Amino acid sequence: MLGAIEAGGTKFVCAVSENGRDIKERVSIPTTTPAETMQQVYDFFRSFSIEAVGIGSFGPIDINTKNDTYGYITTTPKTAWQNFNILGDVQKHLGVPAGFTTDVNAAALGEWKHGAGAGKTSCLYMTVGTGIGVGAVINNHILEGLNHPEAGHIIVRRHPEDDFKGTCPYHSDCLEGLASGPAVEKRWGEKGSELTARPEVWELESYYLAQAMMNYILILTPERIIIGGGVSKQPSLLAKVHEKTQQLLQGYVQDSMITQHIDQYITTPGLYDDAGITGGFVLAARTLEDTPN
Amino acid sequence: MLGAIEAGGTKFVCAVSENGRDIKERVSIPTTTPAETMQQVYDFFRSFSIEAVGIGSFGPIDINTKNDTYGYITTTPKTAWQNFNILGDVQKHLGVPAGFTTDVNAAALGEWKHGAGAGKTSCLYMTVGTGIGVGAVINNHILEGLNHPEAGHIIVRRHPEDDFKGTCPYHSDCLEGLASGPAVEKRWGEKGSELTARPEVWELESYYLAQAMMNYILILTPERIIIGGGVSKQPSLLAKVHEKTQQLLQGYVQDSMITQHIDQYITTPGLYDDAGITGGFVLAARTLEDTPN
Repeated sequence: MLGAIEAGGTKFVCAVSENGRDIKERVSIPTTTPAETMQQVYDFFRSFSIEAVGIGSFGPIDINTKNDTYGYITTTPKTAWQNFNILGDVQKHLGVPAGFTTDVNAAALGEWKHGAGAGKTSCLYMTVGTGIGVGAVINNHILEGLNHPEAGHIIVRRHPEDDFKGTCPYHSDCLEGLASGPAVEKRWGEKGSELTARPEVWELESYYLAQAMMNYILILTPERIIIGGGVSKQPSLLAKVHEKTQQLLQGYVQDSMITQHIDQYITTPGLYDDAGITGGFVLAARTLEDTPN
Repeated sequence: MLGAIEAGGTKFVCAVSENGRDIKERVSIPTTTPAETMQQVYDFFRSFSIEAVGIGSFGPIDINTKNDTYGYITTTPKTAWQNFNILGDVQKHLGVPAGFTTDVNAAALGEWKHGAGAGKTSCLYMTVGTGIGVGAVINNHILEGLNHPEAGHIIVRRHPEDDFKGTCPYHSDCLEGLASGPAVEKRWGEKGSELTARPEVWELESYYLAQAMMNYILILTPERIIIGGGVSKQPSLLAKVHEKTQQLLQGYVQDSMITQHIDQYITTPGLYDDAGITGGFVLAARTLEDTPN
């Protein structure tokens, strides 16, 4: 049996699977302090005989195995979790091989294996919600290098009529600062879910998201792009993103997936809210394979 | 013995190597028409008994093996070369396994294996010259997906005092349209090589290149970034790019390679003008390994 932990800033979801895909049992635990939350995580897994676990964690996290702080949650604004060695803690308490990556990389892995990216060699997963997170699978592997992607913080060109200063504490008006859920709420005075009937909101939102699509396509050239998260549930948004991405690219990338089938190319999740936990199982299975007997 | 072809828009460089690294013999052939140029390519290789060849080609090219036009140079402005099946032609005339990628991906592969990216699992190679080209190695493999990277054409934020309209025929003021060699020349009225003494030129150039660095780091998270090409030879440019990239990132990516050693992280080529041809040998060796007996 395989275990998965989706370590989120609001809640931890833990689950087990017999076949590495279907969820046999799951639990949701509030994210309070490491001591309190992790105890409940371990209590859940105690009922099962798991062989490995895959962790997709909120960040920033250190995924560089060469660093002393590998496996840590690092500079999060959640002070109780700063510099918490989540990977080490899980390994110690569960005593099984553990894979470790970001929440969005886990979601990308889940969508790539069993969701909207199935059958592709690469896919990019973007979530637009409280923040803007991006994970990716390239050549069938999670994209990690110097660090994990932080592609929610890229520079985009401001709309000439948008004078909102942005919400990102680091970069003010990076993509996340201009287009995340809190940015939408602060700019328009209401939550995105209350703004469905105002087309100007989604015109502007798609203006920024389409720039992200263009840059992701030109830099990473993924075979599929999946957009999830709360903001992405706006009914008119995705079609506007499709249209504006094509306009920006100006036919430069001549692949029919972009010129003709962009509605299939940039798409919604196949696994919805289960992308991360499913990716956790995939990661657990890979970690088990890579562990010497 | 291995062969390499660096197929450029101005010249083709062909070379052979005994050990897959050192150049035993090389020739440079003007890029005229496929019939004329390729004949000289085959004449060169006829003197050697090569087992495989790696091709790094100017583009756009089709690198998707599922497409009917795999191995073709596609929509180049060089009309004689439009829709020329360069890979098929080489395979037919040389009768050996042939690897095929972009010129900049070949350079990335060469730098990653034997140059400034040696020992890393990933590196990004950017050339700033007639155009802006980007290639990358991720998890020890050339980055290809839907297509090859075209990261010279990303959107950057305009400098508020820059009203130059840009030179890109597709996007006008994308990165390449604002920061390539021809853009510098058209904006300032002289070639970059004549503008060394004018700091404002390189302030503005680094303003754009640093944005590219930021987006490449946040999206692709490479372990090393290498900048080559004519424009990159400006003595004051790289230090300005370092400084501005750090300013843009605002400490968000907390890796000492960025916060302390950015001069090592974003660097000049180790192989200089031999990056592409060396990458061709690496590609040839890999193609040979992957070929069933």
